[in-house]
Amino acid sequence: MNITIDREILLENLNVISRGLPNKSPMPILTGIKMEATDTDLFLTSSNTDISVEVLINDVSLKITEPGKTVVPGKQFIDIIRIIGAKKVNLLLDENNSLIIKGDKSEFNLKIMDYMDYPNIDFVTLENPLTLESSELKSIIRETVFSTAQTEKKPILTGVNFNNKDNQLVITATDSFRLSQKILSIDSYQDFNITIPNKSLDEMSKVLDSYEGKISLYFSSNKLLLKYKNVLFQTRLLDGNYPDTSRIMPTNFPIIIRFNRDELLAVVERVSIMSPKDREKDRETTSNVIKLTIKKDRSIEISTTNNILGSATEEITPTDIEATNAISIGFSSRYFIEALRSFMSTEISISLSGEIRPFIVRGDYDANLTQLILPLRMD
Amino acid sequence: MNITIDREILLENLNVISRGLPNKSPMPILTGIKMEATDTDLFLTSSNTDISVEVLINDVSLKITEPGKTVVPGKQFIDIIRIIGAKKVNLLLDENNSLIIKGDKSEFNLKIMDYMDYPNIDFVTLENPLTLESSELKSIIRETVFSTAQTEKKPILTGVNFNNKDNQLVITATDSFRLSQKILSIDSYQDFNITIPNKSLDEMSKVLDSYEGKISLYFSSNKLLLKYKNVLFQTRLLDGNYPDTSRIMPTNFPIIIRFNRDELLAVVERVSIMSPKDREKDRETTSNVIKLTIKKDRSIEISTTNNILGSATEEITPTDIEATNAISIGFSSRYFIEALRSFMSTEISISLSGEIRPFIVRGDYDANLTQLILPLRMD
Repeated sequence: MNITIDREILLENLNVISRGLPNKSPMPILTGIKMEATDTDLFLTSSNTDISVEVLINDVSLKITEPGKTVVPGKQFIDIIRIIGAKKVNLLLDENNSLIIKGDKSEFNLKIMDYMDYPNIDFVTLENPLTLESSELKSIIRETVFSTAQTEKKPILTGVNFNNKDNQLVITATDSFRLSQKILSIDSYQDFNITIPNKSLDEMSKVLDSYEGKISLYFSSNKLLLKYKNVLFQTRLLDGNYPDTSRIMPTNFPIIIRFNRDELLAVVERVSIMSPKDREKDRETTSNVIKLTIKKDRSIEISTTNNILGSATEEITPTDIEATNAISIGFSSRYFIEALRSFMSTEISISLSGEIRPFIVRGDYDANLTQLILPLRMD
Repeated sequence: MNITIDREILLENLNVISRGLPNKSPMPILTGIKMEATDTDLFLTSSNTDISVEVLINDVSLKITEPGKTVVPGKQFIDIIRIIGAKKVNLLLDENNSLIIKGDKSEFNLKIMDYMDYPNIDFVTLENPLTLESSELKSIIRETVFSTAQTEKKPILTGVNFNNKDNQLVITATDSFRLSQKILSIDSYQDFNITIPNKSLDEMSKVLDSYEGKISLYFSSNKLLLKYKNVLFQTRLLDGNYPDTSRIMPTNFPIIIRFNRDELLAVVERVSIMSPKDREKDRETTSNVIKLTIKKDRSIEISTTNNILGSATEEITPTDIEATNAISIGFSSRYFIEALRSFMSTEISISLSGEIRPFIVRGDYDANLTQLILPLRMD
């Protein structure tokens, strides 16, 4: 193998490839990046147990003098290309099992790994894509993934469920204490019901960060493949049936309050100083509860009381209120803050069914996004 | 206690106080901040086992309606003052063992701690100060503290030694593998020989960060007190005699090479990618060695060879060289990078006595600062 390529083009593609690279792996070969230069193209591949990424480079700056294939230590190769001082770099596979990387003044000699050890990565066949906008998928991830479970108690809940029925795509995430739901009308496509691991969605979001445009999704029974530009990003899917959450959503709301989102967020963040951060293990305790109270005079108070630290209270004026009675409802401050942050709208509404019923948050300009939070018992 | 004060003034002082506040402590009371309002002044105090800090506030915005004293949970009090929306805050001690903190719209009720539990902090008597510029002390810390030992194998080496004799102050830090030394002529002052814990110096440096001006140092047998503006910052000293390092410094250098500092640093940082980071436990191994070679034609090469990863080589042109013979010397890349970064000079010189003798680095404009590094055996 002997190729020359623009350093920045190579680095840009390596940044995508790095999303599939494990820090450590029970299979050491997977800490390497597979490189394959054909007569015309350079392929780079990375994979951990959940995610596989492949890029095809055929940039005008690419000159392949001699095709070839190898596996190089991933982290070090990326570090070298990042720091090497040069507009163009030359990559030459020598007979001593090294990749020689030449810049303007520096020369690196990187020992290669055994190409034969690299497992065969099966990418889903590129047939029958579902097409979305990159911005749509990024919004979905931002609006839902934070509600997935962080522990493996119920593994299926560590993923986000995508359920398409009659071209209505319902996206759901829940950790049993709160739920995020987004509904999207999509182009005509067959029904599917899959659950994507939260970590894969985080990486997908990073990979798509600077890309605006169409993306294609391809499905198999246990994998999802995302294709855009010259990139294939594949993730495994979670096994098992996602629980039916349709009956959790309340339908009747005697109380609806509207707030300026930023103002409400600031008040809640201030009051939360006195409610110690949620920890997985004490999610069901009341130590992190804040309280929203509608008083008889329809004024609204956010407050918290803590046996150890003390208490905090702040009044806030809603932009609108429909309420037939006074009410006081307690809930996790962190869940509420995360839910509020998921909206782009300046105006949000909180709809309540009662003190011990889940309540929901919606945004004026965030169509079809619902955040649901279960109340917590108060002291 | 009932006082009103400008929020920003209080916060600025709390940021200083936070330097003495432990995250955790075997004495829970020390996680609190001691507050004492006299008729005219507000005193704030914090302390962990090594460092104690006290500030005296008598800002024009301070109004003391009722003097008093208490201890409040430190982290929460600072968080509240940081986030509370208000130009002025009111602090009121109520009869229910709470400090009520009022801003414009929010009210916090912070449970206080038992004032009687707070230990008496003995500050060194404010007599006979040694006066320095804040910038001088900050430079000393930046130039030496990184060379202190990070493990407790020889506890005295975790500190920086300040040895004053006949008004010549010699400051030394070493972890046995490298040594930083700075010599300073000071105003007439009695001889002293003290060793200050590295962590205390780090905190001292942060406290002084935005302060330019005179500082006063006061000494006792086991403590050092730093005073500036309205702040007292006290640290314990390390017990024991600091080793005599005077004989380590070579005096005869047949080879002196001069470099542009930034250029040399960039080359070393690039080549170091192939020399895995030092770790305390393998400091004496050769796995992290880089090599400086003067060839027969007086050209200079920085290189590294690594059994696992491969190798890297880069040529660099010195700005000047005096050398009677070719030489190749190996040393820790991290130590060399840290030494180079300690200089402000654009031009630095490396003086060598031989392949197995310590070498020193000096900067053209960093008067009286010497960085010494022991060579490592090469493969």
